Amino acid sequence: MAQKDIDPELRRDLLTGGWTILAPARSRRPGGGKDGRGRGPCPFCPGNERLTPPEVWAESEGPRSKDGPGWNIRVVPNLYPALVENPGTGGKAGGRMPARGFHEVIIHSPRHDLSLERMDPESAYRLMRAYRLRYRELCGHPWVRQVLVTLNHGREAGASLEHPHTQVFALPLVPRAIREELGRWRRAAARGCPLCAAVEEARREERLILENGSFAALAPFASRQPYETWFVPLRHGEDFSRAGEAELRGMADILCRVLRGLAGLLDHPPYNLWLHSAPCDGSEYAYYHWHLELVPRLVVTAGFELASGLFINPLPPEEAARRLRGIMG
Amino acid sequence: MAQKDIDPELRRDLLTGGWTILAPARSRRPGGGKDGRGRGPCPFCPGNERLTPPEVWAESEGPRSKDGPGWNIRVVPNLYPALVENPGTGGKAGGRMPARGFHEVIIHSPRHDLSLERMDPESAYRLMRAYRLRYRELCGHPWVRQVLVTLNHGREAGASLEHPHTQVFALPLVPRAIREELGRWRRAAARGCPLCAAVEEARREERLILENGSFAALAPFASRQPYETWFVPLRHGEDFSRAGEAELRGMADILCRVLRGLAGLLDHPPYNLWLHSAPCDGSEYAYYHWHLELVPRLVVTAGFELASGLFINPLPPEEAARRLRGIMG
Repeated sequence: MAQKDIDPELRRDLLTGGWTILAPARSRRPGGGKDGRGRGPCPFCPGNERLTPPEVWAESEGPRSKDGPGWNIRVVPNLYPALVENPGTGGKAGGRMPARGFHEVIIHSPRHDLSLERMDPESAYRLMRAYRLRYRELCGHPWVRQVLVTLNHGREAGASLEHPHTQVFALPLVPRAIREELGRWRRAAARGCPLCAAVEEARREERLILENGSFAALAPFASRQPYETWFVPLRHGEDFSRAGEAELRGMADILCRVLRGLAGLLDHPPYNLWLHSAPCDGSEYAYYHWHLELVPRLVVTAGFELASGLFINPLPPEEAARRLRGIMG
Repeated sequence: MAQKDIDPELRRDLLTGGWTILAPARSRRPGGGKDGRGRGPCPFCPGNERLTPPEVWAESEGPRSKDGPGWNIRVVPNLYPALVENPGTGGKAGGRMPARGFHEVIIHSPRHDLSLERMDPESAYRLMRAYRLRYRELCGHPWVRQVLVTLNHGREAGASLEHPHTQVFALPLVPRAIREELGRWRRAAARGCPLCAAVEEARREERLILENGSFAALAPFASRQPYETWFVPLRHGEDFSRAGEAELRGMADILCRVLRGLAGLLDHPPYNLWLHSAPCDGSEYAYYHWHLELVPRLVVTAGFELASGLFINPLPPEEAARRLRGIMG
């Protein structure tokens, strides 16, 4: 079974405790190396549905046939997955385990050139609903411990295809970044939720960028990169799958408005956007507060960041928030 | 004192515990934005010494005047420092502290185009000696807790100037990446040094790339990126400042040979190289083992890495080591 030879594997570094997914299949993806996008037809455009694996879900106005055109949003397995549902039966010994999971792609719309910030409010809301739908579905697998939703925009941010899309990763472990948050938040919980407090603090310290009825967008106190932005639901809750309709509409609204601000201020920068929600491993995380984080890719992280785990940011968040508020009027 | 307004500041993220250095002065550096190198004359070339701050050390064949030409290696403060010796007197309250420290540049040689891997063995050894000299000197300040030595090669790796140079950072805290290593190594110490064991394991599992009398180069078990390489002194020791002459010669030799291998295999890739040694905060770290880590910048880290703290690596380290051994014959 040659296929099994390239199944992805999780390996734990014995010195640092960090996990890496070794995924040889990903070296075959277009732009997986250094030299940019694949050529050939776009696999995410209508009419090219046969270029992706069979869809797992789609939204359409009227009746249509599976894997045919006529959809508004389409969800497919990643053709070059970092996680697979049935990996080879490698053991868990010695810091390795099969990279069992799901790796899906949510294609935002049929339009190759319609980036999130230019979607109409109803379409953007429906996209957020698709996020929640896939999030709920993948959390439902008993062995899935964490689901991550990430949007990479632009080649410098790691997007190997231009057609706007979001990736969903269902992992068999709670990843390091979430474990670090959980550890600190649990210890801080006696004093209340630190993210609720961060919203208050951002209001006081002029790091609030924008607010609507259900979300705040803020420049965090220790921003790692220029224009780093957090999107925080005003109602405390640990679990994205329980977000209500008004919250999804508020999330679509605030994301699109801040992204339009960044596009205007920085001439459409590449960026990464991701969603952090509590693990779905059956434990209780009432102290956690789900949210989204956005980092425009304006600065190359260099040896210092890799050597230290610290960041050097030339733009204070107070100034970033001021500029963004200015352009959004 | 307008100068004090842009003094760098350390801020701790209250949710994740991570520190960021806010360093507004760095936005002024050439190529500090997105669009590449500065124009104008190279401040690291002989004859342009006045373009850097006054030198703190230099090596020359014969007598010369300070900040004049005639040097072989020259060390200057970074013109756009992330850390300064006498920052403003901001307090430590609320997760912030002055970014007190040193940020130096070691200019490898007078030659603008002489990258490390093409230096002759004697010059490369003298550069390693300069590393040790600055490391020792900066560790000597009582309030310095950690000194990091990093070499960025190529613009995609964050080098804003082309003339080969190395940066030295003296920090008033033990950074996260070192703390993580220390925590795990201390717990593992009863079973012996995990890095000594990693060298043995690399030999058994064909992840050893090269060995000389004093150093091993290996592809780590859970490599985060294609061709990640660790350089490990064969003699266990926690403190780079105690490296002996033979070790410095071995370090120069193995770095140059592996870098030549990577240059041949991957057409001179950008890379980051850094040195990890025990903190110089007066505590005992006999279980630690100093070493260097190298990551070529072949893959863009994307939202998944930022969201999870995990890495996706398409190239298994066994294959990376095999290819490097092949080209180095």
